[in-house]
Amino acid sequence: MHPYVIINAAISADGKLATKERKQTKISGTDDFFRVDALRAQSDAIMVGIGTVLSDDPSLRVKSEEYAAERRASGKDPHPMRIVIDSMARMPADGDMFKKGLGRVVIFVSEKAPKDRCDALREKAAVICAGKDSVDLGLVLDELGTLGVKQLMVEGGATLLWSLLSSGLFDEIRTYIGALIIGGKDAPTLADGEGFTNPDEFPRLTLKNIERIDDGVLLTWMKKT
Amino acid sequence: MHPYVIINAAISADGKLATKERKQTKISGTDDFFRVDALRAQSDAIMVGIGTVLSDDPSLRVKSEEYAAERRASGKDPHPMRIVIDSMARMPADGDMFKKGLGRVVIFVSEKAPKDRCDALREKAAVICAGKDSVDLGLVLDELGTLGVKQLMVEGGATLLWSLLSSGLFDEIRTYIGALIIGGKDAPTLADGEGFTNPDEFPRLTLKNIERIDDGVLLTWMKKT
Repeated sequence: MHPYVIINAAISADGKLATKERKQTKISGTDDFFRVDALRAQSDAIMVGIGTVLSDDPSLRVKSEEYAAERRASGKDPHPMRIVIDSMARMPADGDMFKKGLGRVVIFVSEKAPKDRCDALREKAAVICAGKDSVDLGLVLDELGTLGVKQLMVEGGATLLWSLLSSGLFDEIRTYIGALIIGGKDAPTLADGEGFTNPDEFPRLTLKNIERIDDGVLLTWMKKT
Repeated sequence: MHPYVIINAAISADGKLATKERKQTKISGTDDFFRVDALRAQSDAIMVGIGTVLSDDPSLRVKSEEYAAERRASGKDPHPMRIVIDSMARMPADGDMFKKGLGRVVIFVSEKAPKDRCDALREKAAVICAGKDSVDLGLVLDELGTLGVKQLMVEGGATLLWSLLSSGLFDEIRTYIGALIIGGKDAPTLADGEGFTNPDEFPRLTLKNIERIDDGVLLTWMKKT
């Protein structure tokens, strides 16, 4: 049983996740910060791709002490499980994910990942091999279901999002659209990768909700079934 | 006096104007079609870049006979002035813009444009030189003001939009966001080009209006002043 997959991302009015240099950029404001933190706290696990780890070094923990305390009070770890999709086991052993927070870290690698890197990471996290040349996201979701993950939040980056979107492995997309233009043909967008050419292939969505937050707007899309 | 510049574009939920092959893609539905047509009819001129002409061959005329008749009844040409930004005068002489519609066509070229091409185009359209190596959009807006254009609608593509957005030569951006994912790191977005790297440079916007249309949503942004 796959978890319910929520892709959450902040994009500029021109659809960019960050600048062309992949620099993390303030797109939303305080209210959206708390919305994202609440979504983290409600989720059983939070997933990112290795590209995002290497450029942003996120901790993926629940930032608000109140939300963490609520999770603790209901018998959960204060922070959701943190998951990295990392085909070649490039995860740095000194990443913020290992320093901060108290939740479990699970790293999904492929059979191509060097054994010594996997062994080193095993001292800090669970390392699960899922896929031959690259991580098979269908297997990952199977595995997360088995681990008891019912709601999975995905925070990027563009390559992981494209993989999930193009293979239909998502249930919801929440895009916060900020009041700015970043621009750039090489700046990462919500869905990069190969892209579709045939309109029959485009993943179709249903617009579930529109909410003004800070200076921008949050759009909640569901996968059209 | 510059005209009031309205950038209008339909983008997918992941910010793409079209597929990576630049194929025109149905992003919106019938209601949005009429919204765009009404905006065309209200505008004094409609502008596109040469890239859009070469890939889509748009006529840029008002499609609805009713709107064209309303314009005629108020003493205007049935179709707004059609404007192409075309530094090297690559505009095809058999383009749909010359075949259909009855409005004037103005082609802005640079000093680098081959003289024979300019002369050939002069048989079909007004050809105005504005800029040395490439067309200077500030000069274009000056010229359009002189020609009596009070409201200018810009329909793309990604390169022209980036030039206008990055130089602050716009007043409003209307993005219709459709209920689909196109994807692709090479697919054109609302603002391609070089892109900004320093947050101080990002054009800042104010969200003026949100309107559900068809399966998607229309966001109206104003340049923040």
